[in-house]
Amino acid sequence: MKKSFGAKTLVFPTPVFIVGTYDKTGKANIATIAWGGICCSDPPCLAISLREATQTFHNIVEHKAFTVNIPSEKYIKQADYCGIESGKRVDKFSVTGLTAVHSELVDAPYIKEFPFIVECVLFQTIKLGLHTEFVGAIKDVKVDDEMVDNNGKINVEKIRPISWDPSTHGYFGIGMLLGMGFSVGKTLKT
Amino acid sequence: MKKSFGAKTLVFPTPVFIVGTYDKTGKANIATIAWGGICCSDPPCLAISLREATQTFHNIVEHKAFTVNIPSEKYIKQADYCGIESGKRVDKFSVTGLTAVHSELVDAPYIKEFPFIVECVLFQTIKLGLHTEFVGAIKDVKVDDEMVDNNGKINVEKIRPISWDPSTHGYFGIGMLLGMGFSVGKTLKT
Repeated sequence: MKKSFGAKTLVFPTPVFIVGTYDKTGKANIATIAWGGICCSDPPCLAISLREATQTFHNIVEHKAFTVNIPSEKYIKQADYCGIESGKRVDKFSVTGLTAVHSELVDAPYIKEFPFIVECVLFQTIKLGLHTEFVGAIKDVKVDDEMVDNNGKINVEKIRPISWDPSTHGYFGIGMLLGMGFSVGKTLKT
Repeated sequence: MKKSFGAKTLVFPTPVFIVGTYDKTGKANIATIAWGGICCSDPPCLAISLREATQTFHNIVEHKAFTVNIPSEKYIKQADYCGIESGKRVDKFSVTGLTAVHSELVDAPYIKEFPFIVECVLFQTIKLGLHTEFVGAIKDVKVDDEMVDNNGKINVEKIRPISWDPSTHGYFGIGMLLGMGFSVGKTLKT
């Protein structure tokens, strides 16, 4: 039997993205969000959703660019803090001790210490309701050298990204490799 | 040092969603996608992106509804198969042995055996490029009884959702609980 939870924003996994932007004065800000993901393969696009009440919303409108920074497990405290506190009140780079690097490709900062960075320019803005979706055209993906295997493949088990559980508000690590895509299902092919 | 990968559709975690729809004749179809996620809290909305070449694209245009079905690890073969094969060619419910249940809330089928179901009616359609984003207004979330704890909270460690690694095409399980949101970051608060 299935139990109904009503019209709730619940899916698994949900990402933990730290969005990097500049404000009007050029001050770098970072904010943690869970509503987002890849939304188009060509042009390669990444969507993030933000409330108008946030500093990041206005920063993206102003600069038409953002970065998505993916933390390793060891940055869980910094990731959580950047979702609790507002860039309107504090300098989150300063409090967390993280380092803002100016992107050479888009008008936004990224986090030096985080292993995985996606640099985006604003492509479309879609007002949905409480949240507005900002679709960014991906200009580059940058990954720490030591997370890339000798065959040039990104090693997600070294990155150790975090998932968000919107039901209990838990952060989860990455688990075991279960199988390979476009492969394990072939046994069912008729 | 960071290594550049160019304009690639890479983020972690990426979900494994099996999308349930009906075609023109009322035949139930299921298709696996990785581009999607929650995009608005109010109204509660879930976005999925599809290529026009897919059966599911046309089914959503026709019926203005879809379900998102989240598999447990034990359904990895069925999940992968539904991303390899097209509903234009085969009856994927029949091949996988999964059971289509007609939603009482939206004009789409869901998968009886999967532990976590989100029922959506089409809210907005955004053409982005190769993919079109379908934003669904969430009408209900249904979860298997045995995945819900006594306190009424959904237990994601029982659901055992799958993540997709768009770099290597691996499927990953869920890992350890690392900490609680709106909590572990408080130690940094000034």
